[in-house]
Amino acid sequence: MAKTTFYHAGCPVCASAKHDLNTILGRSKFDVEIVHLGEQPAALPAAKQAGVQSVPALVMENGSVLHINFGVDINALG
Amino acid sequence: MAKTTFYHAGCPVCASAKHDLNTILGRSKFDVEIVHLGEQPAALPAAKQAGVQSVPALVMENGSVLHINFGVDINALG
Repeated sequence: MAKTTFYHAGCPVCASAKHDLNTILGRSKFDVEIVHLGEQPAALPAAKQAGVQSVPALVMENGSVLHINFGVDINALG
Repeated sequence: MAKTTFYHAGCPVCASAKHDLNTILGRSKFDVEIVHLGEQPAALPAAKQAGVQSVPALVMENGSVLHINFGVDINALG
């Protein structure tokens, strides 16, 4: 299964994007790790290193970063 | 099958997002209509009406609009 990571911060835009992605990804063969950066600040460096500039964002297995709408600037999270 | 519409304008960001979405959606049970707004300007009003503010964007069956990264402001297309 392809491995992707969905970063979010519990914001309304994040919740909405998460819902929609669940609709898509739940019907596909993706293994999605959900990371709440507000609750897991230790994951911030990895997210920034992956190229995440804002959340919600989905980091694909190939390294692509899909910023989905705009919830929170990642630098506002720490 | 769920019906979604992917709007783009042939830009580099669009092409990249299209590639990544194909990876996701190609493995799922989604019927995706691809609309190139540069080549199909008649589709612009429907895209704007759906809430698309920039492309690339994916409009979900439930009406949600996922703006994926930022390629082109839709108002720059006409």
